[in-house]
Amino acid sequence: MENVQIVMGSISDWQTLQKTAEVLTDLKIKYETKIISAHRTPARLTEFAELALANGVQLIIAGAGGAAHLPGMLAANTVVPVIGVPVQSQTLNGVDSLLSIVQMPAGVPVATMAIGEAGARNAGYLAAQLLGMADPEIQKQLISARQKMAADVLASEEALHHES
Amino acid sequence: MENVQIVMGSISDWQTLQKTAEVLTDLKIKYETKIISAHRTPARLTEFAELALANGVQLIIAGAGGAAHLPGMLAANTVVPVIGVPVQSQTLNGVDSLLSIVQMPAGVPVATMAIGEAGARNAGYLAAQLLGMADPEIQKQLISARQKMAADVLASEEALHHES
Amino acid sequence: MENVQIVMGSISDWQTLQKTAEVLTDLKIKYETKIISAHRTPARLTEFAELALANGVQLIIAGAGGAAHLPGMLAANTVVPVIGVPVQSQTLNGVDSLLSIVQMPAGVPVATMAIGEAGARNAGYLAAQLLGMADPEIQKQLISARQKMAADVLASEEALHHES
Amino acid sequence: MENVQIVMGSISDWQTLQKTAEVLTDLKIKYETKIISAHRTPARLTEFAELALANGVQLIIAGAGGAAHLPGMLAANTVVPVIGVPVQSQTLNGVDSLLSIVQMPAGVPVATMAIGEAGARNAGYLAAQLLGMADPEIQKQLISARQKMAADVLASEEALHHES
Amino acid sequence: MENVQIVMGSISDWQTLQKTAEVLTDLKIKYETKIISAHRTPARLTEFAELALANGVQLIIAGAGGAAHLPGMLAANTVVPVIGVPVQSQTLNGVDSLLSIVQMPAGVPVATMAIGEAGARNAGYLAAQLLGMADPEIQKQLISARQKMAADVLASEEALHHES
Amino acid sequence: MENVQIVMGSISDWQTLQKTAEVLTDLKIKYETKIISAHRTPARLTEFAELALANGVQLIIAGAGGAAHLPGMLAANTVVPVIGVPVQSQTLNGVDSLLSIVQMPAGVPVATMAIGEAGARNAGYLAAQLLGMADPEIQKQLISARQKMAADVLASEEALHHES
Amino acid sequence: MENVQIVMGSISDWQTLQKTAEVLTDLKIKYETKIISAHRTPARLTEFAELALANGVQLIIAGAGGAAHLPGMLAANTVVPVIGVPVQSQTLNGVDSLLSIVQMPAGVPVATMAIGEAGARNAGYLAAQLLGMADPEIQKQLISARQKMAADVLASEEALHHES
Amino acid sequence: MENVQIVMGSISDWQTLQKTAEVLTDLKIKYETKIISAHRTPARLTEFAELALANGVQLIIAGAGGAAHLPGMLAANTVVPVIGVPVQSQTLNGVDSLLSIVQMPAGVPVATMAIGEAGARNAGYLAAQLLGMADPEIQKQLISARQKMAADVLASEEALHHES
Repeated sequence: MENVQIVMGSISDWQTLQKTAEVLTDLKIKYETKIISAHRTPARLTEFAELALANGVQLIIAGAGGAAHLPGMLAANTVVPVIGVPVQSQTLNGVDSLLSIVQMPAGVPVATMAIGEAGARNAGYLAAQLLGMADPEIQKQLISARQKMAADVLASEEALHHES
Repeated sequence: MENVQIVMGSISDWQTLQKTAEVLTDLKIKYETKIISAHRTPARLTEFAELALANGVQLIIAGAGGAAHLPGMLAANTVVPVIGVPVQSQTLNGVDSLLSIVQMPAGVPVATMAIGEAGARNAGYLAAQLLGMADPEIQKQLISARQKMAADVLASEEALHHES
Repeated sequence: MENVQIVMGSISDWQTLQKTAEVLTDLKIKYETKIISAHRTPARLTEFAELALANGVQLIIAGAGGAAHLPGMLAANTVVPVIGVPVQSQTLNGVDSLLSIVQMPAGVPVATMAIGEAGARNAGYLAAQLLGMADPEIQKQLISARQKMAADVLASEEALHHES
Repeated sequence: MENVQIVMGSISDWQTLQKTAEVLTDLKIKYETKIISAHRTPARLTEFAELALANGVQLIIAGAGGAAHLPGMLAANTVVPVIGVPVQSQTLNGVDSLLSIVQMPAGVPVATMAIGEAGARNAGYLAAQLLGMADPEIQKQLISARQKMAADVLASEEALHHES
Repeated sequence: MENVQIVMGSISDWQTLQKTAEVLTDLKIKYETKIISAHRTPARLTEFAELALANGVQLIIAGAGGAAHLPGMLAANTVVPVIGVPVQSQTLNGVDSLLSIVQMPAGVPVATMAIGEAGARNAGYLAAQLLGMADPEIQKQLISARQKMAADVLASEEALHHES
Repeated sequence: MENVQIVMGSISDWQTLQKTAEVLTDLKIKYETKIISAHRTPARLTEFAELALANGVQLIIAGAGGAAHLPGMLAANTVVPVIGVPVQSQTLNGVDSLLSIVQMPAGVPVATMAIGEAGARNAGYLAAQLLGMADPEIQKQLISARQKMAADVLASEEALHHES
Repeated sequence: MENVQIVMGSISDWQTLQKTAEVLTDLKIKYETKIISAHRTPARLTEFAELALANGVQLIIAGAGGAAHLPGMLAANTVVPVIGVPVQSQTLNGVDSLLSIVQMPAGVPVATMAIGEAGARNAGYLAAQLLGMADPEIQKQLISARQKMAADVLASEEALHHES
Repeated sequence: MENVQIVMGSISDWQTLQKTAEVLTDLKIKYETKIISAHRTPARLTEFAELALANGVQLIIAGAGGAAHLPGMLAANTVVPVIGVPVQSQTLNGVDSLLSIVQMPAGVPVATMAIGEAGARNAGYLAAQLLGMADPEIQKQLISARQKMAADVLASEEALHHES
């Protein structure tokens, strides 16, 4: 069974990260949620990340805003892949979150997604793609999700043409 | 054996993407290189990406600069994971490349790295982490690479202290 | 008769692109609307663009937000001129859309408009100017539209002077 | 015969705009060059633009840097289509030029290209695409130029593979 | 008597520019208002600016948003000083307006104010300072306005201290 | 006789501000230079600005980089008009200098010029325009300088045509 | 007893700076509030800062928005440490405030906090850390505040888990 | 005796941080240097910061570039004050470093300095100001350093006047 961890820096990030959870649920992928703050619970961050591999964690999805050190510091403490979601910040629209997550130095990558909800949803899709590397069943789910997306586009076009 | 594809939009991107190749070589991971331009060879892009899954491609690493549509369009045509490397552009320092690669809409993620060489090297490390999800041997390589990085930091500190 | 295609990446872009449609209607230029997503319906994008010339399409107006690959990928698949409209994105105000559309590499231009509604309206006016290159009737319409704009400015000044 | 005018705000812009000229020459399209400064020769700007239509000008390509009012003010004085090239400025890398050219108000569009040389070359290609709307010969030239670009990409890949 | 002209590019800019008018009224300086669009009424712009000196205009205050060519083009057509007010634009918060107004090339300056209402008010104060160069009465008004500002700060401090 | 003060925050700003001096010299306007640092010599700043009016200073031109508080603090201490020149900073290209100088609160304006040398030259031209408000001789100088600029543009066009 | 001064540029900054006051109150640190405008009350700024050391002021916390010269000018007039809080500005979201406060030249530092409320709260925490350098009692308060923050994170996680 | 720790994320940051060391040496303040990478030696970071208080560390000065998590993560693990220096990064000029260091969440402040060498020097001056809160000798040193800075400004003015 999958072991995917959704980690967020603050309960206020759940508004964004629940979009990740929705996508994983739609794709029938199990996950757990944790609130770990890089700055307010650094010891817990270290412990969680250092034990991730031994605990069978396959993937970590981490969302944070502002200085947003969470994804990078998780990545620094484990070789389990970390997907980073920049949460839209109040003052700088998430530009600070994005740069803080994506501009990692050589050696410690974070797979960075778009700012905000689109990025949160894509963290779920990317997780599925990564698990799908070893699981054709998940790949089939993804392919069928993609087909549904395409169908939705066509349906929206029809709706537009009817309307006008 | 691994099937990792390094794809770049132009021969001029090789200066950056060869850092990915170096990391993969160091970690004993096989790769192939391709030059596929989203704008000048769109048909080849589609063909390559549509067949990637059937051809056993496990991971695509795509680097591009400026409008940088390559990683996103590869991702649009396959559920094989795509890692995107924003190449530092001449006029806007890679801000355009970064935003074009990372700001993907929900449904089609690109795992985005830092701008330039750090990002190119990290594409190699992330590829190893992703392949390592199913291959403990690669994880060991990564753990030992991390230990070497830590040792290098300590050695540099010693050098600094001797110098001064 | 004119063959102008308004293509948008998502039904949500219609709020912006209908301004293009309004201008074309005012200038008595026929158009069709399509929803084609570069990322969710890439095969349809390719097919549409590859056949555009043969199908007698004279102009493509493409609006998209965020990574906004639609205008550039349409342009990559045809020599029919493409006018790009950066839709105002939720997180970055359309800066990402603008850079992704305008920063095209040499060989594959997109005629880029302003972000948001002003740009959408201008896509309509530019389309008319381009069709006007071979059609003095449209040029007359444009000249008279310009005269009306100038008159509106003068009228607004009068209103201001009356008010105060 | 074609009547394409390349207008630049200062002789120093020629370093960029000559790329436009090169592309037009390659595509066998005639052009003339002018130096007209929106700020230092405003009367000449008005005269040139007001007479453009009567003088049979089909297209204006205008390059400028910094405040870069040239393309927009040309567009304000004629319904002949104006293609704008943001020249890379010394202090702000052309971000000022780009915004000044692209952010035109509704009613007066400028078809904006990328900042710098890529944009200058694309001004040439877009001019050809626009003239090609009424001239299948130019469209053929463009299609063959596109084929050459694609072939160059493949050749560069081969060179890369030989090298390594 | 003073001859100060407040010129705005669109009636919608009046919301901002009326702050200029309020300050001038407070300082007992006469002004007139005009709506002149650089892009929709370019001929009127030229005429107004070319005749400004002969008509005894002492100062022009020009506000515009987006591409915001109005202040620079007025300045290009007269040696009467032009004060520029960047109106806060809808998509880019006035960054485009600011850069378009302030980044003028050598030879044709625009005295640029802050974005939005603060800038509009300051256009009024600067106008007074410039007229004050030759009119000690206006300087006295300004000095007393400054004293009032200082008194207001102290009063607000007292209010704060009472409150808490 | 004129009393124009060129004030800079550091000797390193002279490289930029000497362009102001050159323009003033060309226009036969007298000036004095001072180095006054807002942060290192704040008392001298206050003294200079507080006495400016009494000392007959007509105009202050102030250039500074980075936090660039000099122009704003001079303006805070006098009703003599202050023209601000944002010096191109080493790390942020002068964006910090520009915002710090231009974003003044209501009540205390700084007439802000472009970043760097163009702005420095324009500080000279604006100074002449302001002094010209009361001195037709200076206005004539300016008009003739403008004519020379226009002639130079035409000459450069001729040179370009000869060359090619 | 502590002598901490909270200084703001305008009464409107109190909405932000009261967060500083709340934190100091929570940590049982005394403070006083002042409204001193760098631009509207420059003489009072100088007097306050010049006397700070003699008056036993230990720390100055200064908040301002826009050009935001207050913190830097206070720092220029005293060697008492100054903590700067960039207030979120209306037009540029506080980017102008941040750059104006943080980009101080060598010799005159301002300890800069995040934009807006987070920064205002952190000004209070940093003040406590600085006073704590000589006061173990305050350090204990801080350590216990940190423990409470960590406990709050864990509690929020529990709440999240109960909810879902 | 003082216990000031200069910590940098990589040996390449020494080029910047040695300016801190120079200032401290000039002010006769002892310091030690360490290279601790948040991402490559996270365990050492935690250990160093957790023990800082017990080890008598009074102040930590931390410099880093890019994602620049070092200062914030040190601050998260101790209540000893942390001064952050954003090192100028290769791709984004230090904007990423600055935002990552300054945009800390409430509860864990980092006293942020300017980007690059000016900021590094100011980290030294701020350290002296903080130590000076309890040490009048250091305050005297600072006051005399300030006097020297002021004298240097006057001397540079004299040099300028002699030169010209």
